[in-house]
Amino acid sequence: MKEYQKQVDEWISQLKIGYFKPLEMMARITEEVGELAREVNHRYGPKKKKETEDSREIEEEVADVIFALICLSNSLNLDIDRGFKSAMNKCYERDKDRYDKK
Amino acid sequence: MKEYQKQVDEWISQLKIGYFKPLEMMARITEEVGELAREVNHRYGPKKKKETEDSREIEEEVADVIFALICLSNSLNLDIDRGFKSAMNKCYERDKDRYDKK
Amino acid sequence: MKEYQKQVDEWISQLKIGYFKPLEMMARITEEVGELAREVNHRYGPKKKKETEDSREIEEEVADVIFALICLSNSLNLDIDRGFKSAMNKCYERDKDRYDKK
Amino acid sequence: MKEYQKQVDEWISQLKIGYFKPLEMMARITEEVGELAREVNHRYGPKKKKETEDSREIEEEVADVIFALICLSNSLNLDIDRGFKSAMNKCYERDKDRYDKK
Repeated sequence: MKEYQKQVDEWISQLKIGYFKPLEMMARITEEVGELAREVNHRYGPKKKKETEDSREIEEEVADVIFALICLSNSLNLDIDRGFKSAMNKCYERDKDRYDKK
Repeated sequence: MKEYQKQVDEWISQLKIGYFKPLEMMARITEEVGELAREVNHRYGPKKKKETEDSREIEEEVADVIFALICLSNSLNLDIDRGFKSAMNKCYERDKDRYDKK
Repeated sequence: MKEYQKQVDEWISQLKIGYFKPLEMMARITEEVGELAREVNHRYGPKKKKETEDSREIEEEVADVIFALICLSNSLNLDIDRGFKSAMNKCYERDKDRYDKK
Repeated sequence: MKEYQKQVDEWISQLKIGYFKPLEMMARITEEVGELAREVNHRYGPKKKKETEDSREIEEEVADVIFALICLSNSLNLDIDRGFKSAMNKCYERDKDRYDKK
């Protein structure tokens, strides 16, 4: 993710507005997650579209959420790689007996 | 992200329960975003904690959201790198005059 | 709320599609909350609009979220008035010493 | 809803902390929606609980989201009844041919 964090920082750094404040960024994340929910519902919800149609749209919404998460993380100097490693460790340690193995 | 998508897939592949259905995964993402919102509010909201205290907790919640997004993406065969590249392109093309430059 | 639950039921009852399934409805709620977040950010976020402009838009987004919550509740036979009474009781019992009084 | 808005105002008015700022309140709403998503997923998601078990828990989470929406609305002087009336009108006007009738 370090590479992605850098790319986003290069984009934001050239803008006058800069990073949003944490709660502003949180609202933006919520907005992007709402758009993702809409696409998922369009595709797998009550009025199902055809299978082939639009997982690309879901892919773009997922990326938009990640973009927003990176903005928040950059503005707070978070290291997402470190966080992710810790999340994977939780899986293998804490949750190792939480789900049945195959 | 390809590496992360692979790591998550290795973890999920060994579990009997496997990937959730898209709408189940969407609810899980919403839950994780809610936990992130709680941490951001704890830290930058009405009862501010001390600066030094807990950006690590926010870092972990960000990673948990990304973990959940990867689960959704893997189950739908999405390529997050491709989506992210497309998101960055949108920034540089569509939005290039949307914000004032420095 | 009973009156509102009835009004929504009258609207939905005449539609062929009927109530969504719970997880579909949950995704819809997430979508509506995202729209609310967008309006709140427009109004109180980084590019503040003038004070007078649009609390009406926020009002409508709040109502849309409540509409979606009522759809979920009706489909599950929930009694929102009972839930709300219980929430207010929690305030006065459980949380009574959680916040400083004036 | 006017009655509910009044009850919440009576509760908040006696607290020193008072109403949160809009973006703080928005983060709180996101948190509560996350808790609702968790309950809906517990009940209707991958590891289904028994039917009889816990729609009460969902009922309480719905009420908590509405409570948070009322806090936001009160702090911004919104009239939820007016917003809801407008939402119902949208159903009967704008959307009247959007869904098939029975």
